[in-house]
Amino acid sequence: MQIEPAGIGTPVDAIETPALVVDLDSFEQNLHQMAEFARGAGVRLRPHAKTHRCPAIARKQVAAGAVGVCAQTVGEAEAMIRGGVGDVLVTNEILSPGKLRRLAMLARDASVALLCDSAAGVDAASRAAVEAGTQLGIYVEIDVGMGRCGVAPGASACDLVRQVVEAPGLVFQGLQAYHGRAQHFPRFADREAAIGAAGQAVRETRSMLEAAGVPPGIVTGAGTGTHRLEAESGLWHELQAGSYVFMDREYAEIEGPSGRPEPAFDHSLFVMAGVISVSGNRATLDAGLKSLSGEKGLPLVYGRAGVTAVGMSDEHTVLELAPGMPALEIGERVRLIPGHCDPTVNLHDWIVALRGDQVAEVWAITARGASQ
Amino acid sequence: MQIEPAGIGTPVDAIETPALVVDLDSFEQNLHQMAEFARGAGVRLRPHAKTHRCPAIARKQVAAGAVGVCAQTVGEAEAMIRGGVGDVLVTNEILSPGKLRRLAMLARDASVALLCDSAAGVDAASRAAVEAGTQLGIYVEIDVGMGRCGVAPGASACDLVRQVVEAPGLVFQGLQAYHGRAQHFPRFADREAAIGAAGQAVRETRSMLEAAGVPPGIVTGAGTGTHRLEAESGLWHELQAGSYVFMDREYAEIEGPSGRPEPAFDHSLFVMAGVISVSGNRATLDAGLKSLSGEKGLPLVYGRAGVTAVGMSDEHTVLELAPGMPALEIGERVRLIPGHCDPTVNLHDWIVALRGDQVAEVWAITARGASQ
Repeated sequence: MQIEPAGIGTPVDAIETPALVVDLDSFEQNLHQMAEFARGAGVRLRPHAKTHRCPAIARKQVAAGAVGVCAQTVGEAEAMIRGGVGDVLVTNEILSPGKLRRLAMLARDASVALLCDSAAGVDAASRAAVEAGTQLGIYVEIDVGMGRCGVAPGASACDLVRQVVEAPGLVFQGLQAYHGRAQHFPRFADREAAIGAAGQAVRETRSMLEAAGVPPGIVTGAGTGTHRLEAESGLWHELQAGSYVFMDREYAEIEGPSGRPEPAFDHSLFVMAGVISVSGNRATLDAGLKSLSGEKGLPLVYGRAGVTAVGMSDEHTVLELAPGMPALEIGERVRLIPGHCDPTVNLHDWIVALRGDQVAEVWAITARGASQ
Repeated sequence: MQIEPAGIGTPVDAIETPALVVDLDSFEQNLHQMAEFARGAGVRLRPHAKTHRCPAIARKQVAAGAVGVCAQTVGEAEAMIRGGVGDVLVTNEILSPGKLRRLAMLARDASVALLCDSAAGVDAASRAAVEAGTQLGIYVEIDVGMGRCGVAPGASACDLVRQVVEAPGLVFQGLQAYHGRAQHFPRFADREAAIGAAGQAVRETRSMLEAAGVPPGIVTGAGTGTHRLEAESGLWHELQAGSYVFMDREYAEIEGPSGRPEPAFDHSLFVMAGVISVSGNRATLDAGLKSLSGEKGLPLVYGRAGVTAVGMSDEHTVLELAPGMPALEIGERVRLIPGHCDPTVNLHDWIVALRGDQVAEVWAITARGASQ
C-alpha cells in the first residue's frame, strides 16, 4: 500500500497527481438518491462493494439504509467485515476449500452468504460451514441470460435448491438473478427486453419451487444500468447496484427510457492528473493505464469542452485540443472521468474525498487487490 | 498489500487463485538472452522496471549485466533504490516540485537521472537538485514520432540541451529517443520504418550539438518490439526494453523480419485461475479485469488447444471449448497469458515464481500502485 496521499484541509491544487478523487457533494447525492429509490420501491438495497472496495464507503451506504453489501471475492468480504459491515453476500461461486474456510470463519462475526450453481459448490460450502461450526447463507444462482455462471432456471435450479435445503451448515435464502451484460446495453429497449426475460426465468423457477412445497426465499440481483426495471417488475426483493455512487463514462452514455442518455446519477469519481508536456495542440498528462482502467476505452476530460483524450499508455494520457481552445499549461491539473469505475478504483490505495476545493476525508481502499 | 500468497515448496496446485505466476526456466532464459544480445551488440542494457515494479527482478537484471534500470515514476525509482538498485533513469518528464524533491533526495544514495522536454522542466529539476545539494542526470527527450512527450529534434532540442548544460545541479547525459507506439506495430516493415525515421532525428540532433561544440552524450531508448533495430543502427548506446522478461499476448503476435510472428522470447508470466462454474461448452474462471489488464483484449489460454477466452468481467473470464475438446472441471487450474504484461503485473502484490510444479521464490511487487 502506498502512503496516504494528502492530509485533511489540503487545497485541491496541492494534492500530488495522479490521484483518485471523489467530489463529496455529488457522491452524497448519489448515495441518498439510490437509497430513497429503494425505499420508495419497497425493495432492499445491498450495494455492491466491488465498485469501491472501501469500508468507509460501505459504512456510509449502510448508514443510509442498505441492509449490508455485496462482495465479489472472499478477500472483499473480509475487508468489509473487518471494516464494520455486519452482513455480506458474496455474489460469486466459491469452490476453493481455503476460501470457503475463510468465509465460514467470517460467519462467526457477521451474516455471510454466497452463491452456488453446482452440486460440487453446495458440498464444498456445507463441509466448510460444518467444520467451522457456523452457518453460511446460500443463494442459488440462475443464469438469466448473462452466459457466465448460474444453473439453468426451472427444474435444474429446483434440484439444486433441494440439495441446499438438505445440506448441513447451509441456509437457503433465495435466488440470485443478475444479468451483468444487460447493465451496459446501450439501448434502453435492449435492457428492458433482457430484464423482461430474466423476470420470466425468475417467475418460472419460483413457481416450480412453490409447487414442490419449497419456500422460494427472496430474489436478489440488478445493477446500476437496470435497477429500475428489476424494482418495477415486483419480482426482485433486493438490488445490488454498485456503480451508482461513482458513475463512469460508460454508464453515463447508455440510453434512458427517452432513447437519449439521461444519467440518473452524477459523476463523483475522477482521476486527477497533471500536465507534464505541451506541444502544439497536444498536452500529455501524468496518468495512464496504471491509474485508469482502459478496457472500456479512453477517459473523458471533465469540465473542458474541446479537450479530448486521444491515447493512453502506462503512465500517460495524451489530450488534443480543438482549434481555438485555450492551451493547457505545464503543471495544470485536469480531472478525468474513467471509462469503467470498478477496475479503476482497484488501481489505487486511497480515495481523496473533496468538499469543494479542499480535502475533507481520505478513505483507504483496503480491499484493493483482494481478488482471492 | 495483500498477504504473501504461498510458501516456498508449495505444489502449484495448492496455490490460491487467482495468482500471478512466473515460470522460472522461461524467465531466466529471457533474462540471459537479452543480456547476451546487448553484450554482443556492444550496447548497454537498462531494462525498464515499469514492466515488473519488482526489485527482486531488477536485482537479477543487474546481476546479469544491466547498468541499472529505468523507472517511469518517482515512486518506482524509490522502490528500486530501496530494493538495492544503484542507478535509475526515470524515463519521464517530472514537473511536480514534491516529486522532484523526492528524486533529488534519492540522488544522495544512487545515481539518478530523468528526462526534460521543456524549459520549465529544466528549471524545476535544477531548483530541486540545488536545494537538496545533489546532482540529477538529465536526458533531453526528443519526439521521434510517438506524439506523446519530447521536444522537436534539431534546433529546439539543442536549445534545451544548452539550458541543461548551464543549469546548476544538473548533468547533461544525452538524448532520450524512444518510439513507444512503434513497439506494438504488428508489421515488421512499419517498425523498421519508424525506427529508421527515429534514427534520422537522432543523427540530425547529435550533428547539430557537435557542430555547436556541445558533447552530445549517449542515446538511450528502444523497447522489446524494436530493440534489434536500434542496436543494429549503431546510433543508440543503451536499450530500455522491459517486457522481454515476461512477454505477453500482444508482443508474441507481432511479425518478425520474416513477416510471421517469431517471438524471440518465451511466455514466462501467467495468471493462474481456477474453474468455478461449468455449463455445456462453457467454463468460468475466477480471474477477470482485476487480475488481468483488459485494454489489449482477452488473454490466451496457455497449453490448451481449442479453449478460448470469450469474455471478461471484474472477477471472471468465460472460456469456450471447441467441439470435441475434453470438458474443464470445477476446481481445475488454467494458466492465462495476459494481453498486456505491464498493467497486469500492477494489479498484483506478489509474483509466485515456479520451478516446474513447485513454488521456488515469492517476489514482492513493492512498486505496485506507485504511479506518483
